[in-house]
Amino acid sequence: MNQNKHNPRRQFLKSTAAAAIGAAALTIPAQAKAKPAKKEPFIRKNATILLQGDSITDAGRNRKRGDIANDPRHLGTGYAFNIAARLLSDRPNDNLKFFNRGNSGWKVPQLADSWDRNCIAIKPDVLSIMIGVNDYWHTVAFGRKFKGTVKTYERDYRALLKRTVKELPGIKLLICEPYALRCGKHVNDSWFPTFDQYRAVSKKMADEFGALFVPFQSMFEKASKDTPLDFWARDGIHPSGPGAQLMALEWLKVVNAG
Amino acid sequence: MNQNKHNPRRQFLKSTAAAAIGAAALTIPAQAKAKPAKKEPFIRKNATILLQGDSITDAGRNRKRGDIANDPRHLGTGYAFNIAARLLSDRPNDNLKFFNRGNSGWKVPQLADSWDRNCIAIKPDVLSIMIGVNDYWHTVAFGRKFKGTVKTYERDYRALLKRTVKELPGIKLLICEPYALRCGKHVNDSWFPTFDQYRAVSKKMADEFGALFVPFQSMFEKASKDTPLDFWARDGIHPSGPGAQLMALEWLKVVNAG
Repeated sequence: MNQNKHNPRRQFLKSTAAAAIGAAALTIPAQAKAKPAKKEPFIRKNATILLQGDSITDAGRNRKRGDIANDPRHLGTGYAFNIAARLLSDRPNDNLKFFNRGNSGWKVPQLADSWDRNCIAIKPDVLSIMIGVNDYWHTVAFGRKFKGTVKTYERDYRALLKRTVKELPGIKLLICEPYALRCGKHVNDSWFPTFDQYRAVSKKMADEFGALFVPFQSMFEKASKDTPLDFWARDGIHPSGPGAQLMALEWLKVVNAG
Repeated sequence: MNQNKHNPRRQFLKSTAAAAIGAAALTIPAQAKAKPAKKEPFIRKNATILLQGDSITDAGRNRKRGDIANDPRHLGTGYAFNIAARLLSDRPNDNLKFFNRGNSGWKVPQLADSWDRNCIAIKPDVLSIMIGVNDYWHTVAFGRKFKGTVKTYERDYRALLKRTVKELPGIKLLICEPYALRCGKHVNDSWFPTFDQYRAVSKKMADEFGALFVPFQSMFEKASKDTPLDFWARDGIHPSGPGAQLMALEWLKVVNAG
């Protein structure tokens, strides 16, 4: 759609420039000089940004400071911190408010159970969700207790998102891909290809809800061409400091392009 | 000194280029093409980087993880974390090792008392120190108990640095300027100009020991032209998330230029 929008304009600029050159004009017509209207940024001024997810988002955040937007301890030591640090220092006058509500070990059902408190009440303008690795992992680790499947993951994730867009009309969504790296103690070959189906569901959700999609799996695989995977996440799941920074940069890249 | 070194080369390149143009040469002589030798970076491959200081460096670091280089929790949620995150993700294959040994409330005497354990034993290749705000502040807050002056600060700081370069020959030093911002509950007009003398001592130490100097006071003052000081450090001392990120970017700028 953007392409259709932009092509006529580019065409117009070309013709105008050609005409100007043909007439050896010394001044460029005002229309040709005018820049295309500046795109509204995905994260607007005064936005409240909520980061939701599991331990990767949690990253040791201090729950006592959970109500203080932008508090560094509250943000933990993961990609949420890195994203907030970057955007707040780049845009100090835009009154951005970051909240982290990641919870170690959580899956879609726990998000759903606490969604009123941990999402709706916060009234985010932008919601970033990274959920899914435990939805698969716990079928392996706690198989008897947890009966989830990729089908329940999809069903529950969709229900959560439907509820979100209904209760918070106009909300902007980012869906972060759950990833699993074949290194360290947690992830082994038995995870695949089943785990890939969870990744595919997260992409499907992004498409269905018009959300931006942050492709963490391919990002880490690309990074591993030069640097071993376990540098980015020693156990294959939880990112190291540089792994979290890489995730933040990818997130920001997607947001800037969005 | 750098200027003297570089000028003759620039002069040489100019003449060579002129000669080449004069002769309408199609190939550029190899000498003119050769780039100046790449400068050795201040932080080399395999470097151990130690960040030392008070609460601003500490930033809630998890002491239980103090022996694990680069562990995000160990690094706290301040500028040390931001610096490490950035350099480790930018240079994943350089085997950099970051340690944070900042301690809330500390002054030069406490650094000196624990220096064997908290610096010498770590054998850093690069040492960044940010100390001084408590050396002044505690003369106000705990005047009866703490008898420090700007003279003892200078004397003890110099002794610490002398010991450091003696015991760790070849170490590279960064001295970070202590700062105090006139906003929030801690800093008021009575701090000045006395506190400025502590800042001046830190600069003097940098000059005496050939250290890089990170000018945090002027950095924050510059940032406050567009954004109120208390956005960067609510109480005038402890940086907010964006304040810490600003400090990290300044630190990296100084290191890259060094």
